Amino acid sequence: MTATDVQNRIDAYPTRNNGEVKVMPRKDPVVWGTAAEGPMDQATLDGYDAKGYLSIDRLVSDEEVAEFHRELERLSSDPEVRADERCVIESSSQEVRSVFDVHRISPVFKKIANDPRVVDRARQLLGSEVYIHQSRVNFKPGFEGKEFMWHSDFETWHAEDGMPRLRAVSISIAMTDNYSYNGPLMIMPGSHQEYISCDGATPEDNYRKSLVMQGAGTPSKEVLRDFYDRYGIDVLEGAAGGAVMFDSNCMHASNGNVTPMPRSNVFIVYNSVENTLEEPFSASKPRPEFAGSTDFTPAGRV
Amino acid sequence: MTATDVQNRIDAYPTRNNGEVKVMPRKDPVVWGTAAEGPMDQATLDGYDAKGYLSIDRLVSDEEVAEFHRELERLSSDPEVRADERCVIESSSQEVRSVFDVHRISPVFKKIANDPRVVDRARQLLGSEVYIHQSRVNFKPGFEGKEFMWHSDFETWHAEDGMPRLRAVSISIAMTDNYSYNGPLMIMPGSHQEYISCDGATPEDNYRKSLVMQGAGTPSKEVLRDFYDRYGIDVLEGAAGGAVMFDSNCMHASNGNVTPMPRSNVFIVYNSVENTLEEPFSASKPRPEFAGSTDFTPAGRV
Repeated sequence: MTATDVQNRIDAYPTRNNGEVKVMPRKDPVVWGTAAEGPMDQATLDGYDAKGYLSIDRLVSDEEVAEFHRELERLSSDPEVRADERCVIESSSQEVRSVFDVHRISPVFKKIANDPRVVDRARQLLGSEVYIHQSRVNFKPGFEGKEFMWHSDFETWHAEDGMPRLRAVSISIAMTDNYSYNGPLMIMPGSHQEYISCDGATPEDNYRKSLVMQGAGTPSKEVLRDFYDRYGIDVLEGAAGGAVMFDSNCMHASNGNVTPMPRSNVFIVYNSVENTLEEPFSASKPRPEFAGSTDFTPAGRV
Repeated sequence: MTATDVQNRIDAYPTRNNGEVKVMPRKDPVVWGTAAEGPMDQATLDGYDAKGYLSIDRLVSDEEVAEFHRELERLSSDPEVRADERCVIESSSQEVRSVFDVHRISPVFKKIANDPRVVDRARQLLGSEVYIHQSRVNFKPGFEGKEFMWHSDFETWHAEDGMPRLRAVSISIAMTDNYSYNGPLMIMPGSHQEYISCDGATPEDNYRKSLVMQGAGTPSKEVLRDFYDRYGIDVLEGAAGGAVMFDSNCMHASNGNVTPMPRSNVFIVYNSVENTLEEPFSASKPRPEFAGSTDFTPAGRV
C-alpha cells in the first residue's frame, strides 16, 4: 500500500480523529459462518449474534488447566521472560500481570492456540481461515487485582494495529474459577452492534501505558451510562477449564479483586485471514509484533 | 474507671499488642434475644446465628429511598458539611465518599436511625436496649468506586473505641440496587465465630487514614486465605430499599466498581447499652465522637 493509497482508503470505523465522540452502527456481520460447518449449532450461533459472546462450560480438561498453571509459573519465574517487553509487571507488587505472545514463547500455549477445539470455533464464527492476532496469559492476583476500564478491543486494533473491519473474535480460557467476586469479565450484551468513535489522538508508543492502564480509546462516561441503560451488564462466571468467546467490538471491563481468590486466563485473539492488518488508522506507527501480529499464517494448520 | 482499673481489666479480645497474629474463638453469644420478643422469627434468628448476617428484602419504601437521596445530595453540596471532619472526600475526584454522624447532622437520617423497623430488630438481636455507636451514609460512585479491604469492624471498635464485648450489630440500608458487579458488600459467612487478633500497634490518630484506607487492624493474607477456604464468600445483592444486618465481628469487604452504576447506603451501628465504651484497648486515646459515640441514650425511645 502506497502513502497515497493509505490517504485515500475508506475508513469504515473512524476514531481518535477530531475529538468528536460518535456512536455508529456496526457495518459488518457478527457471525460469518453457518451451523452446517460446525462445530457449534444454530442456537449457539444465534446467541452469539445477539449478545456478542458465548460461553463454553468445559473446553479443556483439569489436566490441561494444571499444565497451563505450571507453564505460567515457569514463564513468570524466568528472568529472561520477566525482562522482555512482552511481560507486563505490576509496578507496586512486582508480580507478573500478563505475558504476551505466549503462542510463540511457550510450546504449551502454542498447542492450545492451534487446537481444533478453539480454532474450529473461531473459523466457524469468522467464516474463513483465521490467524492469531495476539495471545497472552493474564494473572490477576488475589487481594490486589486491578480493574480494567470499559473498552472495545477493536477500537484499539483498528486505530493502532490497522485492523480494517469487524471480523475478529477473542477467546478467554479460564485457568481459575471465575466468581462474581474475583474480578471476572463483564460484557454489555448487544453492545457489539454499535461502534464508538473515541475522543483524542493516540499518544506516541501508547501501548506501553495502555497495556497497564487505559487512556486513549476509552469511551466517555456519558456513552457508557447510555450503553448500560440500554444493554445492562452480564457477569461471566464459570469454572476453570471453561471459556468465553467474544466479538472484538464487545464493550467489556473487569472490576478489581480484593478476595483471596486469584484469577488467571489464557487469552487468544483470532482474526480472519480476509481481514489482515494494514497501516494503523489513527496512529503514527503500528504497535509491536506481540500486540498486533503481522504473521498471517492460518492457525491450526501446522 | 481509674488508671489502675484500666490496667487490671480483663481484655477478652486482645489485639495490636505484641505483633502476634492469633485466631481465637468468639466468647459471646451472637443472638441475645428470642423469637418470642419479635419482630423476627426463629428461622431468621437461626440464620443470623449461623452466618453472622441476615438480609431484609424490603425495609423502606421507594419514597423513603428517594428522600434519602435528596438528603445525601443536600449534605454533599453543603460547604459546611464538606469542610467538617465528619465528611470524607475522595482526594482524586473530590466527591463525597462518606458523611458520618448523620443521625445527629440530618433529621431524615435521625428518623430512620430511630425507626422501630430498624431499632426493634437490633434490640431483638442484642437482647437489650441499644444505642447508636456510629452512623454514616456511604456513596460509592460509578466508574471509580474504591475497594474496601477485609476486616472485622469490632477489632477497630475494641482497639480504638474501647467497646468491650461482641454485642453490636450494623445495618446497611441500600439506597441503590446492589448487583454483584457494582462493589456490593461481601461477607465470609460464619467468620463472626472467630476473632482475629491483629498485628502491629495503632498509629496516633489512625482514624484519619483508616476511614479512607486501612492499615492497622487488617488481617494477614494467610489468615484471610484460611478463612476463605473454610467459610467462602457471600455476595450481598439486593434492590434499593432492602437491608443487611450483620454482626460486628463478620469478616467483610467490598470490591471497587468500574460500572456506570453507583452504589450508596445508610449505615448504622447499634451497640447494647450493657456493652458501652470504656478506655480504648489498644490506642492511646479514643477516636472522635462521630466514629465511636459516647452518648449511650437508647435509640428509638425519643
